[in-house]
Amino acid sequence: MSGRPNLEAGAALTAAQIAALVSGQLEGETQQLFTRVMDVLHAAAEHVVFFRVGIDTMGRSPSQAEVQAFVDCKAGLALVDHSVAHAGRPCVRVANPALAAAILARHFEAPQKYVAGVHPSAVVAEDAQLDASASIGPLCVVSSGAKIGAGAVLVAQVFVGPGAVIGAHTLLFPHVSVYERVTLGTACVVHSGTTIGAPGFGYVWDGQRHLPMPQVGGVRIGNDVEIGTNSCIDSGTFQPTLIGDGCILDNHVQVGHNAELGRAVVLCGKAGISGSTIVGDGAVFGGQAATVGHLTVGAGAKIAARAAIMKDVPAGATVAGFPAVDIKQYQRDQIKLRRLLRDADKK
Amino acid sequence: MSGRPNLEAGAALTAAQIAALVSGQLEGETQQLFTRVMDVLHAAAEHVVFFRVGIDTMGRSPSQAEVQAFVDCKAGLALVDHSVAHAGRPCVRVANPALAAAILARHFEAPQKYVAGVHPSAVVAEDAQLDASASIGPLCVVSSGAKIGAGAVLVAQVFVGPGAVIGAHTLLFPHVSVYERVTLGTACVVHSGTTIGAPGFGYVWDGQRHLPMPQVGGVRIGNDVEIGTNSCIDSGTFQPTLIGDGCILDNHVQVGHNAELGRAVVLCGKAGISGSTIVGDGAVFGGQAATVGHLTVGAGAKIAARAAIMKDVPAGATVAGFPAVDIKQYQRDQIKLRRLLRDADKK
Amino acid sequence: MSGRPNLEAGAALTAAQIAALVSGQLEGETQQLFTRVMDVLHAAAEHVVFFRVGIDTMGRSPSQAEVQAFVDCKAGLALVDHSVAHAGRPCVRVANPALAAAILARHFEAPQKYVAGVHPSAVVAEDAQLDASASIGPLCVVSSGAKIGAGAVLVAQVFVGPGAVIGAHTLLFPHVSVYERVTLGTACVVHSGTTIGAPGFGYVWDGQRHLPMPQVGGVRIGNDVEIGTNSCIDSGTFQPTLIGDGCILDNHVQVGHNAELGRAVVLCGKAGISGSTIVGDGAVFGGQAATVGHLTVGAGAKIAARAAIMKDVPAGATVAGFPAVDIKQYQRDQIKLRRLLRDADKK
Repeated sequence: MSGRPNLEAGAALTAAQIAALVSGQLEGETQQLFTRVMDVLHAAAEHVVFFRVGIDTMGRSPSQAEVQAFVDCKAGLALVDHSVAHAGRPCVRVANPALAAAILARHFEAPQKYVAGVHPSAVVAEDAQLDASASIGPLCVVSSGAKIGAGAVLVAQVFVGPGAVIGAHTLLFPHVSVYERVTLGTACVVHSGTTIGAPGFGYVWDGQRHLPMPQVGGVRIGNDVEIGTNSCIDSGTFQPTLIGDGCILDNHVQVGHNAELGRAVVLCGKAGISGSTIVGDGAVFGGQAATVGHLTVGAGAKIAARAAIMKDVPAGATVAGFPAVDIKQYQRDQIKLRRLLRDADKK
Repeated sequence: MSGRPNLEAGAALTAAQIAALVSGQLEGETQQLFTRVMDVLHAAAEHVVFFRVGIDTMGRSPSQAEVQAFVDCKAGLALVDHSVAHAGRPCVRVANPALAAAILARHFEAPQKYVAGVHPSAVVAEDAQLDASASIGPLCVVSSGAKIGAGAVLVAQVFVGPGAVIGAHTLLFPHVSVYERVTLGTACVVHSGTTIGAPGFGYVWDGQRHLPMPQVGGVRIGNDVEIGTNSCIDSGTFQPTLIGDGCILDNHVQVGHNAELGRAVVLCGKAGISGSTIVGDGAVFGGQAATVGHLTVGAGAKIAARAAIMKDVPAGATVAGFPAVDIKQYQRDQIKLRRLLRDADKK
Repeated sequence: MSGRPNLEAGAALTAAQIAALVSGQLEGETQQLFTRVMDVLHAAAEHVVFFRVGIDTMGRSPSQAEVQAFVDCKAGLALVDHSVAHAGRPCVRVANPALAAAILARHFEAPQKYVAGVHPSAVVAEDAQLDASASIGPLCVVSSGAKIGAGAVLVAQVFVGPGAVIGAHTLLFPHVSVYERVTLGTACVVHSGTTIGAPGFGYVWDGQRHLPMPQVGGVRIGNDVEIGTNSCIDSGTFQPTLIGDGCILDNHVQVGHNAELGRAVVLCGKAGISGSTIVGDGAVFGGQAATVGHLTVGAGAKIAARAAIMKDVPAGATVAGFPAVDIKQYQRDQIKLRRLLRDADKK
């Protein structure tokens, strides 16, 4: 076996080429050339769908309607795991159909290409250091002393502050603001409206006003980090706020000053990590979940949507509620509470 | 009856002209010319106020202080319904004073005018298609293949991505980001900092990292949709995320990938619709309310502020709480819970 | 005593100079020149740390690990209060170490300097009024009739709408949007992505659509106000939404139309003040806390994180929960609820 084939990005593929690309087993025969991955409701003969009957990594299994939609769907090829006995069409068996679909879709859907060089409308400081292969799009601002790495892309209207460092192949979408004292690693993606490195919310009452404590630690973001739209990562006070390699942050996420995220942390929409809180590798926060400051959330912890973390969370724990407690206790408490309320009716 | 009069926008009006404009009955006489709608605390003789004693469509009725402020107010004309026995000044009787006030205020407060054409500082791709009556303001970017409809306005510093379509008379405020594969209908308004079409939050763990699933479905927004500031509408995975005609979205709202909003849905501040959730016509979400993904919220459902929708909501239902339940059950449970806590004191 | 010394900003200082600057008492001797304030974990001989054993103004006292870190730390000087018996190195005694640290850090960390004048890439309307000492950075837009005060700074890519007024020495970061009918006072700071003056969320159903009520009151912001990133202050309907002197607003904060904040109000991350709500001087809202509209929150009230204010809050009260109640009642109820759930186990 020589590993994954070397295919031209975006090219239509045979079923055999797809099986090789996703390291799966082809079952059945078809002469069809496939052009994209599609959902089961909209798929046509030249499309590939993915499906499983068992519970997926998000804890969902398909509804009866979804099973029927798969049976009825017109896709010429299906990526399935062993939970699907009869795919009803040629299929490629894989361990993880969603992963295979992502790999295949990444083949078909080549990302936008950007031209190297500086658009004439961009404003770039004389002493900024730009790799010749970087793409600085229209109406961007690159400030004094900033560094833009090889193959990095500022799509348009991006702001890069004084001395900020944008790593190789990192992609910044329109209206991103990178303040001074910020470093982004390689191959990161930051979406529109997100701000990185604004001063943390630190003030001291001086008897007459809230005096700002300077926040000069900046932000250090690792490699392969993806951040959604309109999120905010604040500068640390004296040392950088840290975002580890491979973290993924959704929209409207806030990370306070001096927080430290380990590797591959997941923060869903509107999650908030307060100042000086440390989050271990692989922890996952559901939407609107939040912590108070100065806590530790252990590696691999799972924080339910809208949970409010008021004390340390052990590694590997799953917690829910306000204040957040172990999910099993939370569920027991919910059941008991409903029983108490029901019994109150009888009195 | 010949319908509403044809009045020059912004012109001062007589009481009779106002009655005709809002289809109401004038009671009393006045020679005053009126120049704007005003609140009861700040109104002068040349102003028009609106008032009702009964419960309004938001479920509020005026406090005693607000009634007194109406009695004391100096407005020369009042728009009232039949709940107000004595307006204390000339008045125009209408079924819905707030609606009449909106119609009248829209007469007085002519919106900002924008000059057709492309500001010389804007960066417009050669193959973008701009209607000659569109207004492309300073420092906007219009990317390759984008289409801007008749009378559409990009106020300033707007980003329109490759191939995006902006419908006729649609108005985009500064720092809006429209990604590729996005279509906006006619007469929409999108406020500053809102992002439309960034990739949905879809990743698959490949054993080493969170691999992004390409999100290439885009977003399709209907006509007469208004979106507040710093909101986020994500691109669907394979098919567009849908926002129906006449929806109104407040600030900091998030709509996840593959979600589908029907017509005239209302999402108040910080509401969040998770991925693949379907919301029926006319549903209303209060502030900070949110859903998990893959649910259906029926037409006309009312979701209380901060409710957390964990399962389907029937059409017409009103729900509250976390997890959200029917509002009557929620209120009963709250009462019972308070009684349980009170009784616990006695033990 | 002649008050605080006049020191060159950023200059290294002796311990005696530091004691004079922060109005403290030097204990011990050192010839070291100090160059910055640092946290205890990262401090070196030329750094100054601050520490207290007692509870700080945020209600925190140091953990045992933090005490040990202070003992072990390599800083050459410590700012401490009387709760610290043995500083273990030369120290400056002050009433409030955090305040002394802020004053000292503000000496060392001179803010970015901006050049007066208009960057050639900015687009400034002919009839805008710019003070000659203002700095209009690259790719900013200043609209017709806007006024920019002495020493004010628009860093880059800022939008200032028609007729808006930016006070002296006010600092606007990239991608801030200031709509028309907005006035900012002197020495304010507004961070990236924040929008001020977009129309409040006011619509009236006309039988077919949500008709927008014009929102033409604008926003009036006092002096010394600081606003974080991606926050939203909406325009009032007829009269301005008001933000008093010295308010500090964090990221993702929303202030609805017609709201009125007094002086020195604190709104932490994602807090939301709904329309027409009045907040008294010095009130503090924790993260994600929110109010419904048309309420009054008294001066000095403290609103716990994620509290939901459903009725007026008296001056000086501390409230928590959903619906928010007095913190003492909230805590009692939480204890009673846990007891009820525990007792339910025994049945």
